[in-house]
Amino acid sequence: MVTPLDPTAAGFLLAENRTMPMHVGGLQLFEKPAGAGRGYAREMYEQMRAFDTPEEIAPLFRKHPTRSLRTAGQWVWEVDELFDIDHHVRHSALPKPGRVRELLDLVSRLHGTRLAPERPLWEAHLIEGLRDGRVAMYTKTHHALVDGISAMRLLASVMSTDPEQRNMPAPWGRRPRSTKHSESPDPASLSDLPVQVLRGALGIAAEAAGMPGALVTTLKRGLRNETSPVSLYAPRTIFNQPITGSRRFAAQDWPLERLRGIGKATGTTLNDVVLAMCSGAMRAYLLELDALPDTGMVAMVPVGLNAKKSHVASTDGGNAVGSVMVKLATELPDAADRLRTIHDSMRDGKQALSSMTPLQIQAMSAIGQAPAILPSMLKVQGIVRPPYNLVISNVPGPRTTQYYNGAKLLATYPLSIPINGMALNITCTSYDDKMCFGLTGCRRTVPHLQRLLGHLDQALDDLESAAGR
Amino acid sequence: MVTPLDPTAAGFLLAENRTMPMHVGGLQLFEKPAGAGRGYAREMYEQMRAFDTPEEIAPLFRKHPTRSLRTAGQWVWEVDELFDIDHHVRHSALPKPGRVRELLDLVSRLHGTRLAPERPLWEAHLIEGLRDGRVAMYTKTHHALVDGISAMRLLASVMSTDPEQRNMPAPWGRRPRSTKHSESPDPASLSDLPVQVLRGALGIAAEAAGMPGALVTTLKRGLRNETSPVSLYAPRTIFNQPITGSRRFAAQDWPLERLRGIGKATGTTLNDVVLAMCSGAMRAYLLELDALPDTGMVAMVPVGLNAKKSHVASTDGGNAVGSVMVKLATELPDAADRLRTIHDSMRDGKQALSSMTPLQIQAMSAIGQAPAILPSMLKVQGIVRPPYNLVISNVPGPRTTQYYNGAKLLATYPLSIPINGMALNITCTSYDDKMCFGLTGCRRTVPHLQRLLGHLDQALDDLESAAGR
Repeated sequence: MVTPLDPTAAGFLLAENRTMPMHVGGLQLFEKPAGAGRGYAREMYEQMRAFDTPEEIAPLFRKHPTRSLRTAGQWVWEVDELFDIDHHVRHSALPKPGRVRELLDLVSRLHGTRLAPERPLWEAHLIEGLRDGRVAMYTKTHHALVDGISAMRLLASVMSTDPEQRNMPAPWGRRPRSTKHSESPDPASLSDLPVQVLRGALGIAAEAAGMPGALVTTLKRGLRNETSPVSLYAPRTIFNQPITGSRRFAAQDWPLERLRGIGKATGTTLNDVVLAMCSGAMRAYLLELDALPDTGMVAMVPVGLNAKKSHVASTDGGNAVGSVMVKLATELPDAADRLRTIHDSMRDGKQALSSMTPLQIQAMSAIGQAPAILPSMLKVQGIVRPPYNLVISNVPGPRTTQYYNGAKLLATYPLSIPINGMALNITCTSYDDKMCFGLTGCRRTVPHLQRLLGHLDQALDDLESAAGR
Repeated sequence: MVTPLDPTAAGFLLAENRTMPMHVGGLQLFEKPAGAGRGYAREMYEQMRAFDTPEEIAPLFRKHPTRSLRTAGQWVWEVDELFDIDHHVRHSALPKPGRVRELLDLVSRLHGTRLAPERPLWEAHLIEGLRDGRVAMYTKTHHALVDGISAMRLLASVMSTDPEQRNMPAPWGRRPRSTKHSESPDPASLSDLPVQVLRGALGIAAEAAGMPGALVTTLKRGLRNETSPVSLYAPRTIFNQPITGSRRFAAQDWPLERLRGIGKATGTTLNDVVLAMCSGAMRAYLLELDALPDTGMVAMVPVGLNAKKSHVASTDGGNAVGSVMVKLATELPDAADRLRTIHDSMRDGKQALSSMTPLQIQAMSAIGQAPAILPSMLKVQGIVRPPYNLVISNVPGPRTTQYYNGAKLLATYPLSIPINGMALNITCTSYDDKMCFGLTGCRRTVPHLQRLLGHLDQALDDLESAAGR
């Protein structure tokens, strides 16, 4: 069973190297169900690896990429005939005292090693040893297999809002058709869909990757400073350097209610507040390192587009995704000023985006979804400055409490891909009543990454004060 | 501070790739000192990473290899100016129930990831969570930095026979001169010696790597079946295939007294008995997989040579190391027959070795110490069959109980390097009253590696019965 890789997926394999592994991750925290024993984490682990035959694993999680003379040098997906569940589903533990700090240390290390190319491109680590008794799961999926957001949705798709439900399958298990249509109203069994459709669910058209023409036209407009959501006037920062292969991950969540309150009081959106938190934190962090650029930093922010308005029907008929270059206003000392600038910049960008042609929007999507391919593309065009300083994504997640076999999902944090020239990535996802931030950086290029968490917390306080709350 | 790499070290860097990481490892088990609290493992970890400045780290552990236009494309050692102790010294834990099985799982994973080339080429993992309260340490050192045996000796050199001694330095700490000469009669502060001398301590002359002429002459004699310690008539086995990057490690020890008893009763050496255990285990393992070759397997066994007799003075004036191809007699069903054949083969090999010229012996050393380079060397000469089936090394270790800051060293197991065509490596080391076996294999090519432990145990029983004990 051999299927060719779509160009975007092949691009991710080609872009990958030792210092730039191309996998996304997710860290989930669970609360044990009432009455769970001391061996609960092991039971959860055993359940996740309990497959009698490899055929019970969903096709997406059984295939691996290969190329050889036989495939004429082309990358193809092939079923791994020696599938070994124990290679993919792993059981880990934290040293004492088992704080979140030890958890983030472990997850940083796990995110910094590459997936084995001769096997299906994913790993899941069930992690015990948190002193408060919570159980963590870190999952790692290659970007050639599925994009980050779809990966998180895929994990979420096996969950239930019913705390009493049991015998729920592992995310990588092949699910019976019946479950798919009746019980689960969610994006359902994504794992049974071909990967093109999965990626399409976010408007990441595979064709976009093969579209450097439109992309470059759009980028050049930005360079000439014409009206365009693409600003290429980002200052150089410590984040815009070559990276190494080791990673540092930091994660924390804040009550959605606090962020919404600021938005209401200031007439800004939830997303504006998220960006303002990042901006304030970035400013404090870089000031501390004496590395704040004089001009304001620029973030590349993926935004949802109404499919009808934008004339871009994504593969599944849902919303498409475009990208806006947002001024973070890191040069301004006042939190309220920063929030206002961000709000205006985002509004302008969205307006410009809505005036773009579908082709241009698809080109923008390519930037957002395949940033690893961007630098070399730009270099060919003689563009060597960083087009933006970092990617900040904010992806809405489930609004209700989710359960997995009775274990309550407390939080879910995304891990993304630092690349050469973009050493830090911030991805947020809302879940239940929380906004969960995941910061993924190169361990060497972004020193003391975890300090950004304290700065995010302070930035939220500052925004509340500025909003008079 | 830039020093060129010697040719052997550079060879290891060049030979390395994703499926063939070139690092050796060691797994050590410690018993907590009396009165140690629950946080003992963390204290041990904190102590090992407690350095005020990078200058307190021994030079060997601070340099990393680099090459660029600036170095004219040559590999050179350079001090890592951004040295980050937390990258190198790590704290890990085992999931419950914390059996040896969980420990070997973790160590297998750790041994299967590559060292970061932009940093000094070593890692040390302090591991807690063994249910019996023991504390484990896994260390990983690149072969370009130091060979496996020297790495273990280096670790051992900081230990003491005095259980009351405290404030002992970490193996990677720079040690004061005074300690070196007065208190420690051992191979002393190896870490302060240049790497050439370290490697020389085992007779691994750097020049040997540049000696394919003598090597090939020796090998060709073997091919023509002339009197030679080099037999190239090894059958193909499942071990002699391309490998993947993931590893499986298994380890166990047996009382030296049992092995010595067999030797005494049968007139064979301790090393003969080790080889006979491996032979019996290999036969049972391959029979179970229906993969036993009709003709007997051949092991490459490094042996110590008396410097005076062999006319090979190693760099430090100590003993040199040669290699003998030993018939493992895996085709024989009887344990006593196998032991006798091994004994005779080893005796013949050593005799042949003693008749070799110093140049030939150095060439043999090159085979033993740089097996990764061998296959390509042979291929150039049109030799494509496996020259032997696996490497079995047996290295004498300390005969007395060792302590590290009051923690008693219970056992120490070596991890080695599987290479393409040699998917399994067995290295043994004696320590105190034990013979410690370390089996390192490719996870995919050597299925159920841990079963070999049971087979080794059975092989020892069989040998005892055969010896009438």
